[in-house]
Amino acid sequence: MVEQRVSDAQCVAAQDGSALAVRVSDAVNSDRLNDAVAELATFGGRTDGGVTRETLTEIDLQSRRYLIDRARSLGCTVSIDDCGNLFFRRAGQADLPPVLTGSHADTQPVGGKLDGAYGVVAALEVIQALNDAGVVTRRPIEVVSWTNEEGARFGPGAMGSSAFASPARLSDYRNSRDAAGVTFGDALDAAFAAVPDVERLALGHPIDSYIELHIEQGPVLERAGVPLGVVTGIQGVRWFEVTITGAMAHAGTTPMEMRRDAMRAAQNIAHRLYAWSDTALEKGLRLTLGRWRVAPNSINTVPGEVSFSVDARCVDENVLNEFEVALRAMLAELDAEQGFNAGAQEIFTRAMTHFPSAMLEVIERGCAHVTTGAGEPSPMRLTSGAFHDAMYIAELCPAAMIFVPSRDGISHNAAEYTEPRTFIWVRALSRTP
Amino acid sequence: MVEQRVSDAQCVAAQDGSALAVRVSDAVNSDRLNDAVAELATFGGRTDGGVTRETLTEIDLQSRRYLIDRARSLGCTVSIDDCGNLFFRRAGQADLPPVLTGSHADTQPVGGKLDGAYGVVAALEVIQALNDAGVVTRRPIEVVSWTNEEGARFGPGAMGSSAFASPARLSDYRNSRDAAGVTFGDALDAAFAAVPDVERLALGHPIDSYIELHIEQGPVLERAGVPLGVVTGIQGVRWFEVTITGAMAHAGTTPMEMRRDAMRAAQNIAHRLYAWSDTALEKGLRLTLGRWRVAPNSINTVPGEVSFSVDARCVDENVLNEFEVALRAMLAELDAEQGFNAGAQEIFTRAMTHFPSAMLEVIERGCAHVTTGAGEPSPMRLTSGAFHDAMYIAELCPAAMIFVPSRDGISHNAAEYTEPRTFIWVRALSRTP
Repeated sequence: MVEQRVSDAQCVAAQDGSALAVRVSDAVNSDRLNDAVAELATFGGRTDGGVTRETLTEIDLQSRRYLIDRARSLGCTVSIDDCGNLFFRRAGQADLPPVLTGSHADTQPVGGKLDGAYGVVAALEVIQALNDAGVVTRRPIEVVSWTNEEGARFGPGAMGSSAFASPARLSDYRNSRDAAGVTFGDALDAAFAAVPDVERLALGHPIDSYIELHIEQGPVLERAGVPLGVVTGIQGVRWFEVTITGAMAHAGTTPMEMRRDAMRAAQNIAHRLYAWSDTALEKGLRLTLGRWRVAPNSINTVPGEVSFSVDARCVDENVLNEFEVALRAMLAELDAEQGFNAGAQEIFTRAMTHFPSAMLEVIERGCAHVTTGAGEPSPMRLTSGAFHDAMYIAELCPAAMIFVPSRDGISHNAAEYTEPRTFIWVRALSRTP
Repeated sequence: MVEQRVSDAQCVAAQDGSALAVRVSDAVNSDRLNDAVAELATFGGRTDGGVTRETLTEIDLQSRRYLIDRARSLGCTVSIDDCGNLFFRRAGQADLPPVLTGSHADTQPVGGKLDGAYGVVAALEVIQALNDAGVVTRRPIEVVSWTNEEGARFGPGAMGSSAFASPARLSDYRNSRDAAGVTFGDALDAAFAAVPDVERLALGHPIDSYIELHIEQGPVLERAGVPLGVVTGIQGVRWFEVTITGAMAHAGTTPMEMRRDAMRAAQNIAHRLYAWSDTALEKGLRLTLGRWRVAPNSINTVPGEVSFSVDARCVDENVLNEFEVALRAMLAELDAEQGFNAGAQEIFTRAMTHFPSAMLEVIERGCAHVTTGAGEPSPMRLTSGAFHDAMYIAELCPAAMIFVPSRDGISHNAAEYTEPRTFIWVRALSRTP
């Protein structure tokens, strides 16, 4: 689907721009970046060090104003599209589709300082470094802050980037409601009203390529002692809701042999699914049974119905296919032989995303030229287990991601942290366009 | 603890009262009883045939007024004790402690017509039959309607009977709050204010013996085709809250081998507990893992903490002891070997209640004398898996229970139903005092 071309701008930078790129990279200022991360974190900052800045809330609108003012002070022109995605454009030598970079600034209900905000703030640092180095790139560089990546206030997640990739999605998204009954459409209109000074764009304006920087949100880089990851793609994922219906009964009065205990049946399926996942460990299957609903969920009542979510991810689509066959066979067996009603409803599926190899090489070359001064190891290639906006933008143009380590693999938490020394990746970014 | 004596009144009835007892028993009117069940069910009656009459709600207070008026029309004197338990006394030949019978008239948030209400209404039918037969028993007969047996609005359950047995419990109970923040004490005071015409008693006035009639709430009698059960005792029970703490992690980014998945650990414990229960099936162990709490309970987050309730019941205290040892050993193993925090908190325990054998024989003799006219099988002995008010009153005096079949073993549900023909048990009751 995605053309395996490499952006024009990237080729130029990689082949001809070495001297300029080093100049830009040297202009990146880690202290200034740290300060900017802390400054953005004051919008929704919590006493525990975390950040609560759900999409399109009043505090998010205030943070958008802050980003707009910052980008303008750096000489960027600002625009907003029909899904509220914010774009900060630094002009290039030619009026070509820009190299897009950034991430999202919204957080989970209780999030950390970094997550997507890090990618947005760092991209602005690159603009600053380009300014300080006096470099004008051939193509414009555009910083993006996508709307509602988290999907916590309004479902689904990655609304901004997925609507950018497929504008027809927007009308459904506008009807999504938060817990208070507010529609995404109304929240969006309030966001537009708050920025009357910002140019409005239709969704999906032309872009040349996309590079997203994000914290890893997993432990792989940290455990490998590597400060930068070049993301080769995003795991395929399948989500199911498994529901098993038995018969609710009194815990005291119902003999064991007369029960159709939905929890016992669900536990048995869970046991077999975990065992199955062990056999596919080498192939990279990740299995999570994360959300459970038990009815009536009472101490002294045999559960009549149990639902649980299945999140299966793998870089190998065949493993996901085999997993699904195994899951459905287990449920069919339960249904037929033991008098339960059991089924698995597919609630989300997404095939593996592969980032173009030429993009990965551009990033690796950029990283390799960076002078670390501390004997940093070379970047390592890894896959992303999490979804990111880049997953949708990869449908449109060559895309790639850079990861930095997450301490203890923690994210969506006040304890989210990346060692300042790994801000070196920002230097790598500054060399890629 | 409980003296194995048989009530004076019962001996008299069983040995000398046969002719009179047959006269009373013949005066029991099934149609009248059916009508009375339906009439009480109008208080909180639902369109689905169920009843919503939680303790001390406005609708419960109205039903109390109805019961008071009905009892007075039968010639009873009415009193209420400090826990709101209602007593309807039919005088005997001598002013001795009464034979107490009845149950509770409150329901679960969504209950059925029968449950405890059946025992209260049937006891009033016995009073009516005694009146119609012109029989005056030696001891007074007192019908009781206990307060808050269900424990759904205010916890714990069986407040009325347990406070009757141990009045010191009342002060704690008065502080119990419902979901709206109302205290049991305030609800109780409103109930007293609604019956200024009713004599107030201290808790625990002297009683000779207690017989409670209740639907079985299980399938044993129905499956055996037996219309009456003589309850030999109430299973011992232990409730635990098992909590397993691992580490919350991102479902996509965290490799399987780096997880401490609290759900996988909990599932493993559950699997072993069910397997253990299979080995004790012959000894009557009943195991229910009914209430689950998963944190953060999100599709794409590895659960960091899982709690589940363990309800273990058995007629053999040794089996419960062995079960608890096995549970604690499994958790200690998990804790020590796999880096989880795991523990089981005991949240309720109650040893097996044994009803005195002499009481069981009195009931069986009463049943045996009843002319069924339909070749009904003899009553069978069984244990109760559910708690009942009789469990607490058995601490005070000889107590026993009679069960009638529950269709499909269903209770706490609009579908709660007992075949009218089994109202024959009321005849049995009418012969026991």
